[in-house]
Amino acid sequence: MTTTFTQSLAAAWQKNDSLLCVGLDPEPTKFPAHLQGRPDAIFEFCKGIVDATADLVCCFKPQIAYFAAHRAEDQLEALIAHIHERHPGIPVILDAKRGDIGSTAEQYAIEAFERFQADAITASPYMGRDSVTPYLAYPDKGVILLCRTSNPGGSDLQFLDVGNGERLFERVAKLVATEWNTTGQCALVVGATFPAEIARVRSIVGDLPLLVPGIGAQGGDIQATVEAGKTAGGTGLMISSSRAILYAGKDENFATASHQVAQETRNAINRYR
Amino acid sequence: MTTTFTQSLAAAWQKNDSLLCVGLDPEPTKFPAHLQGRPDAIFEFCKGIVDATADLVCCFKPQIAYFAAHRAEDQLEALIAHIHERHPGIPVILDAKRGDIGSTAEQYAIEAFERFQADAITASPYMGRDSVTPYLAYPDKGVILLCRTSNPGGSDLQFLDVGNGERLFERVAKLVATEWNTTGQCALVVGATFPAEIARVRSIVGDLPLLVPGIGAQGGDIQATVEAGKTAGGTGLMISSSRAILYAGKDENFATASHQVAQETRNAINRYR
Repeated sequence: MTTTFTQSLAAAWQKNDSLLCVGLDPEPTKFPAHLQGRPDAIFEFCKGIVDATADLVCCFKPQIAYFAAHRAEDQLEALIAHIHERHPGIPVILDAKRGDIGSTAEQYAIEAFERFQADAITASPYMGRDSVTPYLAYPDKGVILLCRTSNPGGSDLQFLDVGNGERLFERVAKLVATEWNTTGQCALVVGATFPAEIARVRSIVGDLPLLVPGIGAQGGDIQATVEAGKTAGGTGLMISSSRAILYAGKDENFATASHQVAQETRNAINRYR
Repeated sequence: MTTTFTQSLAAAWQKNDSLLCVGLDPEPTKFPAHLQGRPDAIFEFCKGIVDATADLVCCFKPQIAYFAAHRAEDQLEALIAHIHERHPGIPVILDAKRGDIGSTAEQYAIEAFERFQADAITASPYMGRDSVTPYLAYPDKGVILLCRTSNPGGSDLQFLDVGNGERLFERVAKLVATEWNTTGQCALVVGATFPAEIARVRSIVGDLPLLVPGIGAQGGDIQATVEAGKTAGGTGLMISSSRAILYAGKDENFATASHQVAQETRNAINRYR
């Protein structure tokens, strides 16, 4: 039996007693001096973070743009292979927010699941259900759809009233939970900057996992996020922090500093579960 | 003075008397036998198509998923460099449908405009205006936002009534034309499978350029598309065809077959301008 993304996530919630997702958004100009200029600096930096935090997280989330901007797809491949080899059972979400017609989405699915060996991908719902189907053809993989995003412009479309006071992000939550998620592979992105909306999404989708970016550098409140989004069992969340953990330290001991912040964040989250 | 994407597009409409966009969606299993198995097959195939059709198009549109699925980012870089060098003045749209928060969109802009040297990128509007702003920071580049897409699931969200009968894609068209396009860098994607909706978008956005995929393999009607979408001056459209042109021939003369189909398509479009 293959383990599915959802099963791996549930196991990691338990094993590491953690709802924390560490986002891997490598910015070489912020790396410690000893890594600057190395051709494998992105891999080495992220490997340091991963090895220092793997016992504190429920998943890792590399953001592909930060690798692609530096022609570092090979380092992303190596990083995900390293996570699978050294930290088996910790799922990897490729944060790519892809979205395209079916024939093109098939190619994105090959990129994410066969080339990069990610366990789940983030995707946009704007093009509708058949833009998501090709990812679901990989039964052990997850698809995490944008619902309510943490950025200021998130309201431009997501807050539109699509009938009887229902907002677009609520419709997306309902569509995914009741129509698209026929195989239990789906999850949703809901930003931590809007706890009332996390609670609203939770009330719509039952126990569907929610990926919640926006704590840490983006300013989301941990207590409000956990209380709004947790399931009855005290899980259901992947609470993502990137910059606050990645760049906690600035010297050769950067990974130790990241471990420390990740541990504090994990524990802060656990206080409200 | 740098030439902007919009200026290049307008010049190519005139110079080649064409509204045709050739979409570059390379699928190695469909390549002619003499290219099969070559490590640079994707580049060589696309170069053959580009050189055979460059005098018949207003732009080229490589779809990045078809390159990324084959670890062929280097061939995509080489292809775009080849187009700029050998066919100056023909703009290149990177079809990537990216969409993310501002700090990540900055990385995608580096990927598209600095690494790949594309002249424009396709992007999703779901995350709102600040997810688009980083692309607009490159004043000579274009941003082409998804509005009404040609796939069956396009209606799932895009057709929702966001108030007084206005549908989501109409709101996107209005937002982009009246609020986001302050610098004249924006365009919209509107599928050829819905001519009445192309006409509706045209009535909302004035002379804003429209990228129209869906003729050829996807079955959109050329006459209806042109009549619905053209501006008063008989331009305003990038009508994209991929598979019908790319895979017109199957042997060593594949590029000649593609030239023939591209010419017929260009001329068919021109009959209705």
